[in-house]
Amino acid sequence: AADLAVNGVSHRGKVLTLDSMNPNVKRVEYAVRGPIVQRAVQIEKELKEGVKKPFTEVIKANIGDAHAMGQKPITFLRQVLALCSYPELLEDNMFPEDAKKRARRILESCGGHSIGAYSASQGIECIRQDVARYIERRDGGIPSSPDNIYLSTGASDAIVTMLKLLVCGEGRSRTGVMISIPQYPLYSAALADLGAVQISYYLDEDKCWSLDVAELRRALNAARQHCNPRVLCIINPGNPTGQVQSRQCIEDVIRFAKEEHLFLMADEVYQDNVYAEGCKFHSFKKVLFEMGPEYSSTVEMASFHSTSKCYMGECGFRGGYMEVINMDPEVKAQLTKLVSVRLCPPVPGQALLDLVVNPPQPDEPSYTTFMKERTAVLAALAEKARLTEETFNTVPGITCNPVQGAMYTFPRITLPQKAIDKAKEEGQVPDMYYCMRLLEEEGICLVPGSGFGQREGTFHFRMTILPPTEKLKVVLQKIREFHLRFTQEFS
Amino acid sequence: AADLAVNGVSHRGKVLTLDSMNPNVKRVEYAVRGPIVQRAVQIEKELKEGVKKPFTEVIKANIGDAHAMGQKPITFLRQVLALCSYPELLEDNMFPEDAKKRARRILESCGGHSIGAYSASQGIECIRQDVARYIERRDGGIPSSPDNIYLSTGASDAIVTMLKLLVCGEGRSRTGVMISIPQYPLYSAALADLGAVQISYYLDEDKCWSLDVAELRRALNAARQHCNPRVLCIINPGNPTGQVQSRQCIEDVIRFAKEEHLFLMADEVYQDNVYAEGCKFHSFKKVLFEMGPEYSSTVEMASFHSTSKCYMGECGFRGGYMEVINMDPEVKAQLTKLVSVRLCPPVPGQALLDLVVNPPQPDEPSYTTFMKERTAVLAALAEKARLTEETFNTVPGITCNPVQGAMYTFPRITLPQKAIDKAKEEGQVPDMYYCMRLLEEEGICLVPGSGFGQREGTFHFRMTILPPTEKLKVVLQKIREFHLRFTQEFS
Ligand SMILES: Cc1ncc(COP(=O)(O)O)c(C=O)c1O
Ligand SMILES: Cc1ncc(COP(=O)(O)O)c(C=O)c1O
Repeated sequence: AADLAVNGVSHRGKVLTLDSMNPNVKRVEYAVRGPIVQRAVQIEKELKEGVKKPFTEVIKANIGDAHAMGQKPITFLRQVLALCSYPELLEDNMFPEDAKKRARRILESCGGHSIGAYSASQGIECIRQDVARYIERRDGGIPSSPDNIYLSTGASDAIVTMLKLLVCGEGRSRTGVMISIPQYPLYSAALADLGAVQISYYLDEDKCWSLDVAELRRALNAARQHCNPRVLCIINPGNPTGQVQSRQCIEDVIRFAKEEHLFLMADEVYQDNVYAEGCKFHSFKKVLFEMGPEYSSTVEMASFHSTSKCYMGECGFRGGYMEVINMDPEVKAQLTKLVSVRLCPPVPGQALLDLVVNPPQPDEPSYTTFMKERTAVLAALAEKARLTEETFNTVPGITCNPVQGAMYTFPRITLPQKAIDKAKEEGQVPDMYYCMRLLEEEGICLVPGSGFGQREGTFHFRMTILPPTEKLKVVLQKIREFHLRFTQEFS
Repeated sequence: AADLAVNGVSHRGKVLTLDSMNPNVKRVEYAVRGPIVQRAVQIEKELKEGVKKPFTEVIKANIGDAHAMGQKPITFLRQVLALCSYPELLEDNMFPEDAKKRARRILESCGGHSIGAYSASQGIECIRQDVARYIERRDGGIPSSPDNIYLSTGASDAIVTMLKLLVCGEGRSRTGVMISIPQYPLYSAALADLGAVQISYYLDEDKCWSLDVAELRRALNAARQHCNPRVLCIINPGNPTGQVQSRQCIEDVIRFAKEEHLFLMADEVYQDNVYAEGCKFHSFKKVLFEMGPEYSSTVEMASFHSTSKCYMGECGFRGGYMEVINMDPEVKAQLTKLVSVRLCPPVPGQALLDLVVNPPQPDEPSYTTFMKERTAVLAALAEKARLTEETFNTVPGITCNPVQGAMYTFPRITLPQKAIDKAKEEGQVPDMYYCMRLLEEEGICLVPGSGFGQREGTFHFRMTILPPTEKLKVVLQKIREFHLRFTQEFS
């Protein structure tokens, strides 16, 4: 109204308001960086300004961000990146020969031999070749073609792009996409943004968050009433649930996808993060091909990988790729066109991905250090996975499945009725109330289970197992004490 | 049909086909990386395989990719990036102190002091502060707040995100977005993808591609019949047209936006690329604020910048930012939520952007070299801009406006009727036919004017002025000869 006084012209208000903006964007939710994280950032500022709190630092266990939690970068990766950034270092004697060799090869494949040039939109060709060879090694020789590899700005980018390709129709013919509950909220957010229909299937908490085809079928049949289900998304190893799927389960899912004519999206960004004894990572691609040509030549699939997780934890570089399988060549041309609009994924992230799929070999000078660092990270994660499960299961009112893989635990918490009532009074969902109280009282930032979805009437939180072991012990102890106190208060 | 034979089950075809994919994606076009570029890549492969051609290399003048054209990275930028990538180098004596200082500051603002950590989704706070200070310096002290700065994955990402926020409504109330013709095809592509209505306004080729408010009004009034125009996009300095807008013109545009209740999107990625005498870059923000509170407190705007252009040319890092002005706080919260779904822009790109907005100062050791390198790049571009205009204007049938700024020329070509007929026979638009012939005969890759839009019956091509001066001379000479030969052939 200020301008009304100034010039007497009637004030029409803003062009862009909550009422006049894209309604799909309004429907997007993203709990991993939601209100609780905003409050955590605020508390950190208050601590800096000298405000007294019952704690001296905020521990952000809300996100799978290894370096932020103190994990050191893998030396070899960073040496090559430094060489690529400032090739004058190639003249220096401080870097091992294999690092220099990788850097030279990457630079030679860049326009003007600079990582500052745009790359091909699908990604640098020689890196896509390395990715294909990596997949072949991983899957025991099943062929992979660089033409089916699309490098991306983290896995997030590729997942959203793939979903975008798949969504069409209106009303009852609108595309339905099956996602697990609990889920990684990128999926629900992308579906809201695209105006697609989310079809929720529930993982079985009592069976270690495993996936049951009967439940897939239930969800699918219910959804057929109001949309056109075309896509099935799987996260394995699971976020936020930490399960690792059995080979049998994957086979069942693939059979289901074929029977029900669904496009499979396999989010396999945690493929190196498997800790539990008897568990093993099976790629969807490998199982698909082992099921014979009836499957391997028909089931359409995209699988996703990232530099952000596994032993690297290089989230900031936003490297990733997807492999598409049995995709219609005309659609592939459309996909290539679509990704070209944004020009290309960040080249430093592409370079990093190249090192991940083409690591030092036994006869190369960096091999020993590389393997030592890699093994240490994965061994520490395995130890923390065990520690987390054990500690939580000693707390009355917390039950916790084994963390078989990935980087998270998603324990179930029993909340007293009075706490649930209190939360309602405060206008919060109960597990948000619980997590907010934990943040205010102990300085620990978790994400409430409601941000990922959970069965009605159950409550959970997600915590990463990434803090260094000694800090993780403190975190677990503090949550234990808080939980007991909280339960006490409302009993 | 292969699987039919194998298992006798009726073959239902693919889940994802051209008919069943997202129809908006099908409508997307992106000429800068279209068929002509694909053919160029093919020809390069053929050359490598020893196929004989009338030339020995393909010169890709189709895209504004400075490093790919041989421009060397600015030393200071790359030194800091190497230090950030491999902080062990901070212990070394080979890097200047100011580079180390910048690297330390960036690392301290990263989670776990690593550029491998995810950042805040809006971008690293201290970098947003540096961006705000940069804008204040650039605009003579007009205040800028880090809260209004969003770092992005190149300008492309921010432009698409901003458009996405703005699009709503169905049928006649669907959001219309005004874009210049000729345009940078990211805009038309994003609008097709979002299902928004493109409103084309034409730049005036006869007046050096200037923008006329009467033409804006014509386009707007025509569009009001079938959509809800809400957004006006401007590119200044212009791509593909190379014009630099006068202060007066910008003021007129802002007045028009206010009168017509339009959200302004100012694409200013070429803000340092101004060559012509008498031309100067005026930011929309500065002009807006100089027009007084009646404007500066009401007109909603987003402006975009990138690390890809100017003197840096660091396209591969995908750094960029947008500043939003007068944006409704609730909408800003929605924007922040939306960008959080993809977690964060690549951190190396953020770091690079920080150096661009916070370059070496006169009392710092890197200053002299930095200024020398920066000045040399911009001076060479100015020289090439002049050379390009002059040479083209000596060719009968080519007319070329001065390249006042940016990195491109968009000359008009007169095509003989017989050539137009021949193109139709081949099923190609005439300027595509022309450019394909040029590619096959001379190995020069340009983008036909039809990829950017042009007035009916006129033909153009876009060429970057980025090749090194000696190579540019060869390119200009070859185009000259080709044009004369082509015209001859069809006369
Ligand atoms: C299951 C899953 N998919 C995808 C992503 C996206 O990772 P990025 O975009 O960093 O590669 C994450 C990140 O946490 C994830 O947990
Ligand atoms: C006018 C204009 N805007 C935006 C962009 C996108 O640049 P980037 O995404 O690399 O920052 C370009 C690239 O050429 C451009 O010319």
